[in-house]
Amino acid sequence: MSFPVPTPDMFPHKPKQGLRLAPHTRPAASPVSKVGLIGMGTVGSAVARILSQNASPRLQLTHVCSRTAARSRFPWLPADVACNTDVDQLLASDLDIVVELVGGLNPAGDWIRRALQAGKSVVTANKQLIAHCGPELLDLAHKMGCQLAFGASVAGGIPVVSALQEGLAGDRLFKVHGILNGTCNYVLSQIEKEQVSFDVAVKEAQRLGFAEADPSEDVDGLDAGAKLAILARVGLRSEVRVSEIACRTIRNIEAVDFVYAEQLGCTIRQVSRAELHGGDLYSCVQPALVPLGSPLARAQGSQNLVVATGQFGGDTVFSGFGAGGNPTAVAVVSDLIAIAQPQPSAAATVSATRPNKVSSDFVSPQYVRFTVMDRPGIIAVLAAIFSEEEINIDSVLQKPGYPKSALPFVIAFEPCSASALEKALNRTKTLDFLVQPPVSLPILH
Amino acid sequence: MSFPVPTPDMFPHKPKQGLRLAPHTRPAASPVSKVGLIGMGTVGSAVARILSQNASPRLQLTHVCSRTAARSRFPWLPADVACNTDVDQLLASDLDIVVELVGGLNPAGDWIRRALQAGKSVVTANKQLIAHCGPELLDLAHKMGCQLAFGASVAGGIPVVSALQEGLAGDRLFKVHGILNGTCNYVLSQIEKEQVSFDVAVKEAQRLGFAEADPSEDVDGLDAGAKLAILARVGLRSEVRVSEIACRTIRNIEAVDFVYAEQLGCTIRQVSRAELHGGDLYSCVQPALVPLGSPLARAQGSQNLVVATGQFGGDTVFSGFGAGGNPTAVAVVSDLIAIAQPQPSAAATVSATRPNKVSSDFVSPQYVRFTVMDRPGIIAVLAAIFSEEEINIDSVLQKPGYPKSALPFVIAFEPCSASALEKALNRTKTLDFLVQPPVSLPILH
Repeated sequence: MSFPVPTPDMFPHKPKQGLRLAPHTRPAASPVSKVGLIGMGTVGSAVARILSQNASPRLQLTHVCSRTAARSRFPWLPADVACNTDVDQLLASDLDIVVELVGGLNPAGDWIRRALQAGKSVVTANKQLIAHCGPELLDLAHKMGCQLAFGASVAGGIPVVSALQEGLAGDRLFKVHGILNGTCNYVLSQIEKEQVSFDVAVKEAQRLGFAEADPSEDVDGLDAGAKLAILARVGLRSEVRVSEIACRTIRNIEAVDFVYAEQLGCTIRQVSRAELHGGDLYSCVQPALVPLGSPLARAQGSQNLVVATGQFGGDTVFSGFGAGGNPTAVAVVSDLIAIAQPQPSAAATVSATRPNKVSSDFVSPQYVRFTVMDRPGIIAVLAAIFSEEEINIDSVLQKPGYPKSALPFVIAFEPCSASALEKALNRTKTLDFLVQPPVSLPILH
Repeated sequence: MSFPVPTPDMFPHKPKQGLRLAPHTRPAASPVSKVGLIGMGTVGSAVARILSQNASPRLQLTHVCSRTAARSRFPWLPADVACNTDVDQLLASDLDIVVELVGGLNPAGDWIRRALQAGKSVVTANKQLIAHCGPELLDLAHKMGCQLAFGASVAGGIPVVSALQEGLAGDRLFKVHGILNGTCNYVLSQIEKEQVSFDVAVKEAQRLGFAEADPSEDVDGLDAGAKLAILARVGLRSEVRVSEIACRTIRNIEAVDFVYAEQLGCTIRQVSRAELHGGDLYSCVQPALVPLGSPLARAQGSQNLVVATGQFGGDTVFSGFGAGGNPTAVAVVSDLIAIAQPQPSAAATVSATRPNKVSSDFVSPQYVRFTVMDRPGIIAVLAAIFSEEEINIDSVLQKPGYPKSALPFVIAFEPCSASALEKALNRTKTLDFLVQPPVSLPILH
């Protein structure tokens, strides 16, 4: 690791003894990179603000493109920064670096391709685009001798992308797991604390701006799935398509699940996992039981957490704010500073390999909540099925106080594969005492 | 952030569909960097092992220098790696990169200077050398157009140096704190769990290889102080001399302190802190009360933890194994991989500025344990002194069961500066009921 670009104005105070810089470290005419910014939402305006405060002497914000172009919304924007709605004009100007903060596959993808084809470097926080098209775009950047950086696409302000691909490059990482979606954190915490339904928790999250009008991408795991695909590529050097990552929703989690989880010393989180076993990649995004007091359990609100596990270095944990304007803007500006270095190396393309197979069939202890019309013999019937499927029961939990007509109880199973459990659960579908489908969650240790 | 050097053999399995590499990404004759390694202790031999397993196609270990040169100790070392005791011979050979893993200011510093002067890049884990001479050595590296990397010098396998200086470059960090010494973790945990004295805990740590024969550098804070000086430089861009960092020993911590700390919802850790306030740098290494359940409290054994706090990104936490052969070797090899890139940028020198002043006079709630020959009126005498010094008592804790002749009790104070507390404590020195000097610890929240 070498020291960063000198940024004497990183701190506002005047140095007492001046900069401790040797005369050769700052060329008389340090080149300045002109930066254009597409998208002036929460993250975009935070980036523009930081750049306007002289984040680095090598970066000059010259253009911003906003859907509304209401310049009056950004009164702090320096007068010499052009502000309009015309992306074509921005792309046609003499920028060195384009920052894309609109999101989504298109038109963002087209803009980025055009910028790279014009030899401009690109910084983006667009997880879906990088997850789907990262290798293609990196190839294009490499061919054009420019850079594509996307540190903000995963876990916002936590510099986990660079940490995995550079800081831990000397290890052989075989597992990456963590909490990559703050909306799920919030919704699950609400269900737990307020003992409310999923729908009520989501409405509250929407009211507070923590969930989109359509929360599907967050609560059904697609947002975390895209981030996990990126982490698998940069951390495990394993090329996985977003569509191959199994994503399970948190919609079926109820307050009672937290009651039973606590009896097992756990709480519930949306967990993203990717693991290499030989040449196979196991990956999924799903709600899971995690031990109370574990780092996973402690992630709250927009906090994200990533655990990278290597053959030599063991577990290395990164946590911080994974969303929000300012933390995500830090990741964008850090990428800009790296690109604006005097001699940035050209973007190397991904060295990721295709796994032999991609599977979500993890083996773990399992939690299954059954909701039944109570009558004698239910446990016996279920026990017989799981016994025939060679899945061992670890414990049966039943709290008093629930109605006989919709009685929730939990069976915790010894470690078995997700597919074996699913096969057994399929056999329970015809049982007339079940008033709703069983809810199954892996128990992580 | 751009993708790393392609390292197709990072994982041992055969890729099913071959490497996903565009034809232009791997030149036909990729240059290989020849690496020479000085020091074959725990870390050195772990580095040699990882390099011998083809960590990167761009790195070739050609020389190792061991004090004993007993090649038979390293039967796994490839036959074409030269192994002897002659550092001069190693430095004179046609190496591209020298890895220094001997430690200490000299002769390690001379070797590194000679390597840099010969245009060879250097990777080191030498915290004392980097803390004392980092800027000078970086200047030299820059002048010679080569690199000096020291990611392994702080927090072993946790890539915190690169994370602070690159991954969080877009933020304005104003605080870095954490747990940087595993020996203190172990000794303090032993005192707590086994209710033993400091001396007994250190002996046990020495027996298990967790402490040196002379444990001073660890338990008196000098090891953590050197690391903190490096973090202040790379994270806070603040140039502080090692000698300016106040280091307080953990030698006066007793089992009873953990009993009282627990009453305050805390445990005790050796905490390293550096904070910018305006142009002033506050820094120290000292034992402190930290809340039970906080990330600081959870660091065990050789686990390290660093919290970086920025104006925009808030707290970002890094934790993992801060010592041990393999984790530290990961940091060394990651630095080697970065340097062996096709176009590594020349080492930039430090952009750190001198703070207006360096102080350890933090303001915080304070814990003070008094050990007294019990008699009536003691609290009244003490309360009068602290009242005159305008330090407010928050609570008085006294557990039963201790002898009257050496009765330990604790006064917790509302926030005050360390210097104000020290002034008041100096006034207690003449009190004849004190059977040993008071033990004071800040309470961190």
